Amino acid sequence: MDVYTAIRERRSCRSFLSDPIPEEVIGKILDAAVWAPSPMNLQPWEFIVVTGAEAKEAIRQEADRCRIELLEKSGWKWLGKYSVDFLATAPVLIAIAGDPEKSGADKFLEGGGLCYQHACAAAIQNMLLCAQAEGLGSLWYTLYDSEKLRNILGIESGKAPLAIVCLGKPAGEFVQTPRKEPTQKAVFIR
Amino acid sequence: MDVYTAIRERRSCRSFLSDPIPEEVIGKILDAAVWAPSPMNLQPWEFIVVTGAEAKEAIRQEADRCRIELLEKSGWKWLGKYSVDFLATAPVLIAIAGDPEKSGADKFLEGGGLCYQHACAAAIQNMLLCAQAEGLGSLWYTLYDSEKLRNILGIESGKAPLAIVCLGKPAGEFVQTPRKEPTQKAVFIR
Repeated sequence: MDVYTAIRERRSCRSFLSDPIPEEVIGKILDAAVWAPSPMNLQPWEFIVVTGAEAKEAIRQEADRCRIELLEKSGWKWLGKYSVDFLATAPVLIAIAGDPEKSGADKFLEGGGLCYQHACAAAIQNMLLCAQAEGLGSLWYTLYDSEKLRNILGIESGKAPLAIVCLGKPAGEFVQTPRKEPTQKAVFIR
Repeated sequence: MDVYTAIRERRSCRSFLSDPIPEEVIGKILDAAVWAPSPMNLQPWEFIVVTGAEAKEAIRQEADRCRIELLEKSGWKWLGKYSVDFLATAPVLIAIAGDPEKSGADKFLEGGGLCYQHACAAAIQNMLLCAQAEGLGSLWYTLYDSEKLRNILGIESGKAPLAIVCLGKPAGEFVQTPRKEPTQKAVFIR
């Protein structure tokens, strides 16, 4: 699939068919991830690939607990009716954990030390684009307590669990989300 | 260009030809950026497109000052001979600034509030892949003082200048950088 097509047609998918994803497709998605750039090529990412029902259900429960907590803290009504069932129904979840020790020279900057997270985010974007090219739906999910997710997935205490990528064949149509024109978001210094 | 090819062949480029980049190509790269996903589709990014020699030279000088500061702080010898001249010679620099107010529900999480940066990083990765498809070299550059870059580029004080993307036709060959096998970076919970 053409790179622009993948970028333009990718949408967040929250409804998945139960069809399993072949191992080689998971391998391809992980391969796309590791070719992201990172500070000093330190490759600060780790991937936890979850296909087991028990672990997925534990994640779903934590996400639902977190949803209610966030509803109370924010007062945002949409959180009241937001279902996180996709965390249990998606055939594959891939959690991404970043290593703060692998952030390159930016860790010596004031307010720095986050470039390892940026690299992990670039790896995630590669995964989403690769999933799109494979005809899969994907979701970049982030609403959980980090410590609780570490415990569920056995992630070391020093590592930051940035996101969970949900993957699977999409059920139904994608929702189109508009974008502001790039010119509304850009200034030029000539 | 196929999405895998763009992901696999992208390399950090630090040597550029002076050939200008056509406006429509810059537009295409910005369009690729804004199709990244973001929390609640808040599109937390801004782009400052720099083609003027004076602004590029001011950025180069700040990056060189920062390089010496980081050399002193880190003791990392490679910083002593690292030239940041590409910031002046690349025909186009695009700085990306993120808005912490647009981070979605994660801002209510302990240690959260960084998802706007992840979205900006995804937008940057889209830009690099798009540049690759256009036959351009690119570099994701991050070593400068944020406040000083804000002053040079007129970025509001509340916004985080995440990176500068250098763009231009590459001069010479890319350096190949290896990756660890994805299997070395992944665990499976079945």
